[in-house]
Amino acid sequence: MTETLDRTRPPKRKTALIDCDIHNAVPSDAALKPYLSSRWRAHLETTGSRTYSPYVAGYVYPKVSPAGGSRLDSWPPSGGLPGSDLDFMREQLLDAYDIDYGILNCLYRAAEQRNEEFGAALARAVNEWQVEHWLERDARLRASITVPFESPEPAAAEIEQAAGHPGFVQVLLFPRTKEPLGRRRYWPIYEAAVRHGLPVGIHFASTTAAPITSAGWPSYYIEDHTVMSMAFQSQVTSLIMEGVFERFPDLRITLIEGGFAWMPPLMWRLDGLYHRLHAEVPHLTRLPSEYVRAHMRMTTQPMEEPGHPPHLLQLIDQLGPEMLMFSTDYPHWDFDNPRRAFQVRLPPELEEQIMYGNAQRFYGL
Amino acid sequence: MTETLDRTRPPKRKTALIDCDIHNAVPSDAALKPYLSSRWRAHLETTGSRTYSPYVAGYVYPKVSPAGGSRLDSWPPSGGLPGSDLDFMREQLLDAYDIDYGILNCLYRAAEQRNEEFGAALARAVNEWQVEHWLERDARLRASITVPFESPEPAAAEIEQAAGHPGFVQVLLFPRTKEPLGRRRYWPIYEAAVRHGLPVGIHFASTTAAPITSAGWPSYYIEDHTVMSMAFQSQVTSLIMEGVFERFPDLRITLIEGGFAWMPPLMWRLDGLYHRLHAEVPHLTRLPSEYVRAHMRMTTQPMEEPGHPPHLLQLIDQLGPEMLMFSTDYPHWDFDNPRRAFQVRLPPELEEQIMYGNAQRFYGL
Repeated sequence: MTETLDRTRPPKRKTALIDCDIHNAVPSDAALKPYLSSRWRAHLETTGSRTYSPYVAGYVYPKVSPAGGSRLDSWPPSGGLPGSDLDFMREQLLDAYDIDYGILNCLYRAAEQRNEEFGAALARAVNEWQVEHWLERDARLRASITVPFESPEPAAAEIEQAAGHPGFVQVLLFPRTKEPLGRRRYWPIYEAAVRHGLPVGIHFASTTAAPITSAGWPSYYIEDHTVMSMAFQSQVTSLIMEGVFERFPDLRITLIEGGFAWMPPLMWRLDGLYHRLHAEVPHLTRLPSEYVRAHMRMTTQPMEEPGHPPHLLQLIDQLGPEMLMFSTDYPHWDFDNPRRAFQVRLPPELEEQIMYGNAQRFYGL
Repeated sequence: MTETLDRTRPPKRKTALIDCDIHNAVPSDAALKPYLSSRWRAHLETTGSRTYSPYVAGYVYPKVSPAGGSRLDSWPPSGGLPGSDLDFMREQLLDAYDIDYGILNCLYRAAEQRNEEFGAALARAVNEWQVEHWLERDARLRASITVPFESPEPAAAEIEQAAGHPGFVQVLLFPRTKEPLGRRRYWPIYEAAVRHGLPVGIHFASTTAAPITSAGWPSYYIEDHTVMSMAFQSQVTSLIMEGVFERFPDLRITLIEGGFAWMPPLMWRLDGLYHRLHAEVPHLTRLPSEYVRAHMRMTTQPMEEPGHPPHLLQLIDQLGPEMLMFSTDYPHWDFDNPRRAFQVRLPPELEEQIMYGNAQRFYGL
């Protein structure tokens, strides 16, 4: 549930806690300059950013507040953007909720650059910045590797470089791509991730300018936010049906900030169709739902909340208790408070799995 | 479950039965000529059909058999297309399963014609053909009105014309449209439907050439079939968020052949977002899920089948027992046998609602 900062420290929790979705923000492009070569520094100064997603600003996060897509209280006193100040993040999140590990997903959009080499240079810079300003400064933090994922070969090269630092535990993509993510175009990314034992995270966001529904652009942000979960569903479908998990048996996928209530119905639909149409996809050897359970995990925020709260426990039972990993989405507007995120009290063993154990095993923490 | 014809007549059922999705087929464009003016007959002969959906043939129904998207046994002995012969439909479906009422949804794509007037003339012809060849020939049959829905004013005029025949009980749209269905562009259709007390059905199909996912075209038919349910989800979202049900309080929507398991998660997501973002949609006065339950119904086929069958009863409980109306999708390849469609035995009262009562009340039969 949306929650502003509670400054009273809680009593020591019994359950350990991993937050699988925290957003650290690059304060400005200028902050990346120390990590860019002279060529790309000059490019940034003279040509600047040229993207193919003119609409992004208006529809990924709403201007629900003067903080844009962030919590009103999340602007650091030091100045700068929400999520850009580690000390303030410690105070508001890591210390306040006694978080054992936090996974940083920096949403800097290197992948939307139309100049592919510039995008790759920006991704390199973001990752070096993450190491220096975040990973080397707090032992609780881990991070996702920013990659120019629409340029899969350079993205794979970036994984090679960044994976050398043990703080990187994931590769980060977005669910709205130029082609469905199962297609061969993206396989170099999966090959590199698997080689380094890293899962591939897919996080709510976009770099493309394609309409988010098959009927074109919806009118309202609330629709954009709703149908983003459908972008996730079509990517899950693509990854399975293209045989990506047959080609990369060790590939693991994290679905981040996409919701999770839609997954059981999707598995049922896919399994039902597979029984009838498997002749079209003879490269598959298992039921679609088996690929989901073996290869995918989902973060909890934004959590769908049934009108009848016990339905949430039915849903988790349908999904499988191993599938969920807790996340706050700090510092964004729809932050989930770890102490109050669930509508119903979870059985202790399930709570431990979701708040800690599943992520601990998945990320090897 | 997919089922071929069982020629042994069943013992008399205890439960009455309404089939809410039967496909009667226009045998060929020539069959429409008697219902076209000389101008449009000439147009058909000289210019012919010009559509903007070049991909439709390959992805709405698969060539799973020599029957295209239809059951192997559904070609009438008299010749012609599956679904084109009433006598054979009686034998295979209406009599075989002792169906009390059947709703015909003719999928003729008048709405994909690039010449809007020609599309309107074809829709008029299809509806006259339906009256003469179907509605006037079997008292069990009802039908949906074919409309050129991308031309909402002519579509509304067609509703005016066709609604004069009591056999028409619904207006038929498809879920992949040029704009989201909630937008004002489509309101003349809703206004006309409400004026005549007709629900608006949205049936699995497409007339547009826009990609079905926000990441473009998927590779496989099994993906097309899966993500079609997402086209439904985004249309439901649009209809609610645009305030269509505030503007037309008597509007009723039938979601046909789109699955139904995705609806509870969608309602939860929409309600949760509405609690936080209602300022963006101040024209709404109720929770999104309340609009769904008050204004929408869903047909059962293709039914999602949980791996653990009791989950189906949980799902129906989450959805609400009043929401579902049984359908076979005859003569298509994934036909549901009324005697075997459900994985689990339904409680008798629920079975009566789904197989008969909900549709009887909704369509006023």
